[in-house]
Amino acid sequence: MRIIRLTVGYDGTDFCGWQRQPGARTVQGVVEEALAKLAGIRIPVVGAGRTDAGVHALGQVASFRAEIRLEDDELLRAINALLPGDVRVSSLRTAPAGFDARKSARSKIYRYRIFNAPLVSPFLFRYVLQWPGPLDFERMAEAARLFKRKADFTAFSSNRLLHPVRRVMGSELKKNGRGITYTIEADGFLRYMVRTIVGTLLEVGRGKIEPNTIEDFFTRKKRSLASPTAPAKGLCLIKVVY
Amino acid sequence: MRIIRLTVGYDGTDFCGWQRQPGARTVQGVVEEALAKLAGIRIPVVGAGRTDAGVHALGQVASFRAEIRLEDDELLRAINALLPGDVRVSSLRTAPAGFDARKSARSKIYRYRIFNAPLVSPFLFRYVLQWPGPLDFERMAEAARLFKRKADFTAFSSNRLLHPVRRVMGSELKKNGRGITYTIEADGFLRYMVRTIVGTLLEVGRGKIEPNTIEDFFTRKKRSLASPTAPAKGLCLIKVVY
Repeated sequence: MRIIRLTVGYDGTDFCGWQRQPGARTVQGVVEEALAKLAGIRIPVVGAGRTDAGVHALGQVASFRAEIRLEDDELLRAINALLPGDVRVSSLRTAPAGFDARKSARSKIYRYRIFNAPLVSPFLFRYVLQWPGPLDFERMAEAARLFKRKADFTAFSSNRLLHPVRRVMGSELKKNGRGITYTIEADGFLRYMVRTIVGTLLEVGRGKIEPNTIEDFFTRKKRSLASPTAPAKGLCLIKVVY
Repeated sequence: MRIIRLTVGYDGTDFCGWQRQPGARTVQGVVEEALAKLAGIRIPVVGAGRTDAGVHALGQVASFRAEIRLEDDELLRAINALLPGDVRVSSLRTAPAGFDARKSARSKIYRYRIFNAPLVSPFLFRYVLQWPGPLDFERMAEAARLFKRKADFTAFSSNRLLHPVRRVMGSELKKNGRGITYTIEADGFLRYMVRTIVGTLLEVGRGKIEPNTIEDFFTRKKRSLASPTAPAKGLCLIKVVY
């Protein structure tokens, strides 16, 4: 038995997220189908991050255990030949015993792209949130830094968990022309956490809330206090750190 | 009556080309539908280039005649609000009397993108032809320059026309890392002309034909002599010159 580790990129537009679901096109589903064709049996694949419908990935990591005689580079080519064009395995290697893409992950880095302009190119609209109105970038950047902490992130999630504490090691907003990019690294993410933080940053950018209101959200731990969830299409899983 | 001139960009992946066809999703069709909602009546829109299914555009130009009370910038915003995300009008203005996007065009510039690597990103696969094998770039570049001429291009088209002479003012291949880009400017294009030229350049790059064989193709004027048509997805209408 070998443990195989894959780095997977995908355009999430036409997927109902990572996780396999009956009757839905999911990334896990198409990867498992490709593997089943190669191995002759269904092999369960574990993904580091269960990205939601419409969320993209450049550096999702997945792993599976299998008896496959192909060399790593042959297996890489064979899997890609069987996958649709909107999913690509960019690297593949045999991992040390005990490796599990989800459990072994130390942190994950997500990026959210906002395009602050009245028009967005038809080649970009799948990958960014287009925001036509004015945004106060400096205040948003100040607010973004406040999320770098170890805390209960319940106010920035859609569900209540027994263990809602996450450690955010990086939380930064950058501007490049009309593009605004939010990058966050954490040891784990609650459901919709990045998109709710981005929704909150947009409320700050529009002047609806002050950056220091974010302290209140953390203190009160109530979802209803925080802001609308930003749409999935701007979000991308950039990297999983082991 | 005003003549309105639009610059239109689109991701051609999910369109059956520019030209309206019953029961098919076409760019002309969705633009005319958006206009019909604004004007209350169907207004025929003329496009400079009738791009085929799967072909993209950054700078397609279209025109139509209408009685519309909106100012140009209001009309631009209104049309974009009614168009799907994979079509964007990037500029709109009232044109001088007699302007017709197709008849007034002096030349058009198309670009074809090849990605010469075993893997292509899932964010790029809609817009490039991925070519995994070796290609002799210098020979291809030499061959590309041979298309800059006024000539009968029948050998590089899918149909026979009464007037198959076209003037190609620019025909150049450039390399940037693994990307190879072919840019061609001509006063007109026969059907599949760019894609057949690219198919021929690929045959040169693989060593199947010599660059100087291209002279034979021009002399014999027979389609069967030339090379396979490259797929639509690498092609983009960049600009229309007036």
